[in-house]
Amino acid sequence: MRKFMDFSTWFDDTLVKAEIMDNRYAVKGFAVYKPWGAKVTRKVISMLEDELDATGHDPMLFPVAISEDDFAKEAEHIKGFTAEVFWITEAGERSLERRMLLRPTSESAMYPMFAQWVRSHADLPLRVYQSVCVYRYETKATRPLLRMREFLWNEVHTAHTDGDSAEVQVKEAIKIYVDVFRRLGLSYYMLMRPDFDKFAGAVYSIAFDAWNPDGRVNQIGTVHNLGENFAKAFEITYEDADGAQKNVSQTCYGFGISRVLAAVVGQHGDDHGLVLPPEVAPVQVVVVPIHYKESEGKVEAYAKKVYEAVKKSGLRVQMDSGEKTPGEKFYHWEMLGVPVRVEVGPRDLKEGRVTISERVSLKRSSVEFDKIVTTINALLDSLTENLRKRSQAALGEMTATVGDMASLKRAIDGRKIARVCWCGSKECAETIKDKSGGEIRGHRIDVEEKPESGCVACRGKAAKVAYVAKAY
Amino acid sequence: MRKFMDFSTWFDDTLVKAEIMDNRYAVKGFAVYKPWGAKVTRKVISMLEDELDATGHDPMLFPVAISEDDFAKEAEHIKGFTAEVFWITEAGERSLERRMLLRPTSESAMYPMFAQWVRSHADLPLRVYQSVCVYRYETKATRPLLRMREFLWNEVHTAHTDGDSAEVQVKEAIKIYVDVFRRLGLSYYMLMRPDFDKFAGAVYSIAFDAWNPDGRVNQIGTVHNLGENFAKAFEITYEDADGAQKNVSQTCYGFGISRVLAAVVGQHGDDHGLVLPPEVAPVQVVVVPIHYKESEGKVEAYAKKVYEAVKKSGLRVQMDSGEKTPGEKFYHWEMLGVPVRVEVGPRDLKEGRVTISERVSLKRSSVEFDKIVTTINALLDSLTENLRKRSQAALGEMTATVGDMASLKRAIDGRKIARVCWCGSKECAETIKDKSGGEIRGHRIDVEEKPESGCVACRGKAAKVAYVAKAY
Repeated sequence: MRKFMDFSTWFDDTLVKAEIMDNRYAVKGFAVYKPWGAKVTRKVISMLEDELDATGHDPMLFPVAISEDDFAKEAEHIKGFTAEVFWITEAGERSLERRMLLRPTSESAMYPMFAQWVRSHADLPLRVYQSVCVYRYETKATRPLLRMREFLWNEVHTAHTDGDSAEVQVKEAIKIYVDVFRRLGLSYYMLMRPDFDKFAGAVYSIAFDAWNPDGRVNQIGTVHNLGENFAKAFEITYEDADGAQKNVSQTCYGFGISRVLAAVVGQHGDDHGLVLPPEVAPVQVVVVPIHYKESEGKVEAYAKKVYEAVKKSGLRVQMDSGEKTPGEKFYHWEMLGVPVRVEVGPRDLKEGRVTISERVSLKRSSVEFDKIVTTINALLDSLTENLRKRSQAALGEMTATVGDMASLKRAIDGRKIARVCWCGSKECAETIKDKSGGEIRGHRIDVEEKPESGCVACRGKAAKVAYVAKAY
Repeated sequence: MRKFMDFSTWFDDTLVKAEIMDNRYAVKGFAVYKPWGAKVTRKVISMLEDELDATGHDPMLFPVAISEDDFAKEAEHIKGFTAEVFWITEAGERSLERRMLLRPTSESAMYPMFAQWVRSHADLPLRVYQSVCVYRYETKATRPLLRMREFLWNEVHTAHTDGDSAEVQVKEAIKIYVDVFRRLGLSYYMLMRPDFDKFAGAVYSIAFDAWNPDGRVNQIGTVHNLGENFAKAFEITYEDADGAQKNVSQTCYGFGISRVLAAVVGQHGDDHGLVLPPEVAPVQVVVVPIHYKESEGKVEAYAKKVYEAVKKSGLRVQMDSGEKTPGEKFYHWEMLGVPVRVEVGPRDLKEGRVTISERVSLKRSSVEFDKIVTTINALLDSLTENLRKRSQAALGEMTATVGDMASLKRAIDGRKIARVCWCGSKECAETIKDKSGGEIRGHRIDVEEKPESGCVACRGKAAKVAYVAKAY
């Protein structure tokens, strides 16, 4: 597939042709979501938000502007983000007395409010989310969806009576993300980030690194245990049952909506364009009447009947009766990644059948009218399952276990994700980065992997099996 | 009702107690939408977006940051907004080479892209919308929901081959807004704004001024015919069927989501709190079991059965089995504006009935089990209709027709919307503002009103019956 040969060209091309994003906006790192992209995005957001609603999370909406004082409260946090925030310093014709920043993430917007809301243990747990754009002044080359200065995400912030409850919340968060990624057919490594690469202010950070056709990894989600660090900085305390004042324990987790969209495009797309998992396809089925002069009216009427039957079943279906040729229509809907196409021609009409084509295999089959809906539903199920399997297989093929630095460099140069034994030191992580170009991304937490040889860099005793890759 | 005596206290109090908004955020004019407010907001947004989707509008998402060059392209537009934009001038540790502004509205973000997208008449009409926050540096006192520096709205921008098509679009926009406002039971005057008060860059502006309990008007929506003004400035041209290059004709319209929420709170709320139109109530029906020790288990089971029956009908229902007393629960759900409450006590259980209470009248009635769903549905319908009628009656009572300046001043001081005859001159509008404190808001376009006396200010020939009010 072209995407593995020249990802960059394929990706930019597909984003434009499939009406996902227009990257010609006048401000660098900011782009326009076009209608098809906006619709898929909306589906991804509701899929996630429905799961959050069902697990005791509350929607809220916090401001984009954060005061410099609040931003400065947690020392590690400001250190981690200060190089990449945008500052608002003027309004109208005047300079603001105090400048404010655009949220790069919302800890410092939310936690001063948490401090006001939390009084007693009865106010806990607090679980709040919002789906919003955040702003980071990326100095590396920006890439549409993958590395933007404005990007869409969903962020959850929670507060609990103690560390154990926060730990339970971390597991709950992982479960939610795993489930949404599963429904999207995405594959990734679930990694504990090394200590030197955790979120600024966190106790530890877990990340979901999805594969991308160019061998780089795409961090699509992160879950952080914040311990009491932010509680101390923002004075979020509660009175426990015995009347004592205690710090809350916190977690936060972020789901990269723009990056998930990038992963859906990159992992599932092919030479014909997008392939959308049925749950997030704005149109799941397109009905295309194939017109010949003599039978046009009748074919159109029959196609309409097919359309009505599919619509009644609750599937998202669209009829394409436009002026274009069938070939042009096929090309268009394949490019948009619509999972199932139903063709209705004079012969189908005569036989009381239709021709159904499935987007992954592009296989066509003839189906009698009464079996249209059951056939489509079976195809949609198997398509989701096939996407998942194909994506998982690609991740496997993209991963190379290597034992020495030369092989590691070859793997990274060859656009692989490398699996290495690592002693756990920052020095060796730096050596690895310098010599191979890849970064230590962490070790798996869903599977226990025991190192069976020495550290790839220093040859000393290995502490972990770690994954090394270039990253967006 | 308290809201008419001391709106400001009532409103702030209700926003807090009904968990709509917290106004204690550290940046002035920016506030936090709390869970109940966020959920109602989401319902309002989908109500509107569904109507836009059904009438050929496409969702998109444009950046919040606009380049100064693009902003400066349309002369009237920049003049109108320049005093109230926020500027981003720094990022990380450095000054930006070119500052950018936060969108106060998105013409200058969208139209440069329109110029790239529109090539021929086949690309038209173009109808694009987004629901986003916009930013205006208000120098007047800010008020939660009503006058914020960050507020939520939905904006639509369209481009057409000619002025006639744009005119048709203006009518379509009005129809959509009227329908959504009707479903929310809101009352307002639909006014043609005077020429000196139209949107910066527009040919004319139509606005929806909703009443507020303090007699000020709350502009909840606007529809603008932009003619070719922006097309010329942004060079949005197309090739017509004859091969000639022509300017597009444009419209734009804005639906103030935050302000609509303010109108729902202000027009329908009462001394007990919010009253939510059923279509946007996150919970439409709450089931409250009334426990007595001897029958607790049985009552709970019966209440659960009631809950299941209501849920099955498709209504949004919640069961409140919490620890609080029935009185506390009633108070809570009334404050949140839930339209219908179902009480289930030992006597209801014995008789196979329930007690249903409706939020506007607070009237209670006993209903047998089999009639619960039909009764609730009838109550919800009549509630929406009653809200609408009550709101319309309030608008009527709040409006005073006056014939001289002294009466006009008395009317405005007495928190009325005044109906006057006006010659149409800007000078007289200024006199009116100076002497009465109210502004000429425009003349009605849904009803033709002929002036029957001279201008209230200059006594000269009156051109219009105009509405005068203080405004948010």
